[in-house]
Amino acid sequence: MKGNIAKGLGVLAVGVIIWFMPVPVGLKPAAWKLFAVFMATILGFILQPLPIGAIAFISITFTALTGVLKPAEALSGFGDTTIWLIVSAFLFAKGFIKTGLGRRIAYLLIRKMGDSTLKLGYTIVLSDLIISPATPSNAARAGGIIFPIVRSLASAFDSEPGPSARRVGSFLMQTGYQGNTITSAMFMTAMAGNPLISLLAAQALNIQITWGQWALAASVPGVLSLLVVPYFIYKAYPPELKKTPEAKAFAAGELEKMGAMSLGEKIVAGIFIGALALWSTSQYTNLNATVVAMLAVSVMLGTRVLEWKDVLEEKGAWDTLVWMGALVGLAGYLSKLGFIPWFSKAVGASIAGVPWFQAFVVLLVIYMYAHYGFASLTAHITAMYSAFVTVAVAAGAPVYLAALALAFMSNLCMSLTHYAAAPAPIYFGAGYVDQGTWWKLGFMVSVINIVIWVGVGSLWWKALGLW
Amino acid sequence: MKGNIAKGLGVLAVGVIIWFMPVPVGLKPAAWKLFAVFMATILGFILQPLPIGAIAFISITFTALTGVLKPAEALSGFGDTTIWLIVSAFLFAKGFIKTGLGRRIAYLLIRKMGDSTLKLGYTIVLSDLIISPATPSNAARAGGIIFPIVRSLASAFDSEPGPSARRVGSFLMQTGYQGNTITSAMFMTAMAGNPLISLLAAQALNIQITWGQWALAASVPGVLSLLVVPYFIYKAYPPELKKTPEAKAFAAGELEKMGAMSLGEKIVAGIFIGALALWSTSQYTNLNATVVAMLAVSVMLGTRVLEWKDVLEEKGAWDTLVWMGALVGLAGYLSKLGFIPWFSKAVGASIAGVPWFQAFVVLLVIYMYAHYGFASLTAHITAMYSAFVTVAVAAGAPVYLAALALAFMSNLCMSLTHYAAAPAPIYFGAGYVDQGTWWKLGFMVSVINIVIWVGVGSLWWKALGLW
Repeated sequence: MKGNIAKGLGVLAVGVIIWFMPVPVGLKPAAWKLFAVFMATILGFILQPLPIGAIAFISITFTALTGVLKPAEALSGFGDTTIWLIVSAFLFAKGFIKTGLGRRIAYLLIRKMGDSTLKLGYTIVLSDLIISPATPSNAARAGGIIFPIVRSLASAFDSEPGPSARRVGSFLMQTGYQGNTITSAMFMTAMAGNPLISLLAAQALNIQITWGQWALAASVPGVLSLLVVPYFIYKAYPPELKKTPEAKAFAAGELEKMGAMSLGEKIVAGIFIGALALWSTSQYTNLNATVVAMLAVSVMLGTRVLEWKDVLEEKGAWDTLVWMGALVGLAGYLSKLGFIPWFSKAVGASIAGVPWFQAFVVLLVIYMYAHYGFASLTAHITAMYSAFVTVAVAAGAPVYLAALALAFMSNLCMSLTHYAAAPAPIYFGAGYVDQGTWWKLGFMVSVINIVIWVGVGSLWWKALGLW
Repeated sequence: MKGNIAKGLGVLAVGVIIWFMPVPVGLKPAAWKLFAVFMATILGFILQPLPIGAIAFISITFTALTGVLKPAEALSGFGDTTIWLIVSAFLFAKGFIKTGLGRRIAYLLIRKMGDSTLKLGYTIVLSDLIISPATPSNAARAGGIIFPIVRSLASAFDSEPGPSARRVGSFLMQTGYQGNTITSAMFMTAMAGNPLISLLAAQALNIQITWGQWALAASVPGVLSLLVVPYFIYKAYPPELKKTPEAKAFAAGELEKMGAMSLGEKIVAGIFIGALALWSTSQYTNLNATVVAMLAVSVMLGTRVLEWKDVLEEKGAWDTLVWMGALVGLAGYLSKLGFIPWFSKAVGASIAGVPWFQAFVVLLVIYMYAHYGFASLTAHITAMYSAFVTVAVAAGAPVYLAALALAFMSNLCMSLTHYAAAPAPIYFGAGYVDQGTWWKLGFMVSVINIVIWVGVGSLWWKALGLW
């Protein structure tokens, strides 16, 4: 409690100091004051003297109270299409979890190909991949669908935390977690912060990264990572048990318990396929990604697969609406009031002469490993994405290369720690992997991912004509 | 379930029929199509084949999908300041209920002046009045604060549903309910639909009814009603027990149990007084009512009187955000696309020649008693307010007279039935008043209220220079 008060005062102090600093030449006072609020908000998101929703709410109230923004401007983020893409995707995921379709997909895959520990690992990763486009909360995907299966699989092989952990459990836990890291990066709707990235890129660089573009750009490095990383873990951190013929029987038993596919599951499956089709063809149909997600939720509501009370109980959606909506409003006006253009011009001038490739690699590495200091991907994105992408482009890096590479790093940095993002404590908390091992493996996987995503990825994006 | 499908098909059919009707001369096709969606939405709110939140969500999705509105236009209501006034006021009320301050106020009043049944009735009504500006959910005010006190008071006098109901319970229940009806009308923040009225009046008539104006206009007729109605119920539906010296002791006992005022209660009391002061002086400070409410919530969050998890669990706020935000977006574009101006011109032409006073009284009476067909004040407002106020003004009624009289009728119609609005089933469900009596008393009270609010009220508004 006292710690929180100290943190709160620290956050306020930073805001106050910036607020009263002399306004740099070339900036409107309102832009500078908004920057002060923004910095204090982000520091608040990192230190969390209050939950981030409360901080965001207080911040926009303050901007409206002091007249830095008009009330309608301060609230503008709540009507943003990106925000409602996220809200809708949370509700979509609720349908996935509620009907049991996600679990069924995983068990079907295990029954089909789960007869060795390595294959089981790939199966888990594949299950995560299949449902990832519809579950923007990677925590819900991990905690609500995949982790419970991994946990029961481990138990099915008598692998519990302690001496028997390494039998299969440790390997499966680490594979499930690192797989979630990779799938998070692969779709705009696979991690809650990804649509924010697309919005920040639009605000800072004036480019549109569509759902289809993101998925296409991530496809080759993503699949490569999903093939390489589980195998790497299998070699670097091998399970004691290599053959697991019982897994198929276990999955078959669970499927038996679930019974035939319910009408609800069939409906969600149909909606899921339809939404994927509409999302991936949006460049032809001109259908906005948000409208597609809302359509999916509408069909779920109309067929009562999703009840309205489920919607009201989906706190993750409302939490995200408030803090992210507030932030999007602030960030939007930071750009509109001229701060971002001023900032990029200033930085561009200061690094004139440094070759862009050199500057870009340094920026990427700093961006990735700065995540040792964050407990949330979205906090990291919020604090650093706009600035880093602006600086990279100012240094001369091609626009899409910079935007995409930093977008993917924003997810892949999750590999590093046991507190990197919400799925981390879920897998770590199961007790199969000790902290030292987690960090060591995490660092090695991060290097593999950088090589694959930036090395191979940049060639792929070049081939796609993105830069 | 089957009933709901039939209702759903009926709603769809109405929408489809209007959608494909020839577009009236002078209207853009988009305006007419939006009108079709709007009518289907309102019919859906009345018949409720799905909860109204789901209907609203589906409606805006449909407008964006068909291109009647752009996605950002369809979502625009979610960033509306009126909507966030309501959301914030819901959260404000949560602080009132959670800290127990509302209950304490009621018990203090009872301890001071609760020695006769009539006085008890006035005390209950006064308690409701005091907290009403901060509890826009009149259901929360009734169900969360006042009703539990009324119910325990009745029990304290051995008045239970059945033979002993008339001892004190029936009178107190009916007084509590009719008092809630009146207080709902008295402040813009005393009933969730009231800010919507102010918004609809702004959209339809281009006038701004401020928080202070509303309170001032309602003050004289409101106080008069609060004096007359309990006395009328006391005479028309007398309690068997007239003297209640035990009530003071009961309240004293409850206060004893509550102990000293907690820090949380003191903070909420301070915030409440501060918010009232800022709301009622907004014409001088230019502080927007929404910003004041958000400030109050921010202080509650900062002092942890209100925890962020309380916010996320306040489903009423999220429900209202979705359905009312969607509706405000639709209604706003109905006006912007030219439907409302076209409609008022058409109606104005058709009633040319009828004296305005005559037309106005007929409209008021129809508006009030149409509520026999509604189970929600806000549904009634949504369906009828804009049209009726537009017609009244087109007929020649002074703008503010029409806007205010219909605004107050929108609340006072709650007196009529045992399903008129959410507080009704709460008080009725206690079982102290039978349905026949409820309707009879309700009708008589509605007549008293019309006489006071329109008769005396219109003179008061004249004196205020509002028309």
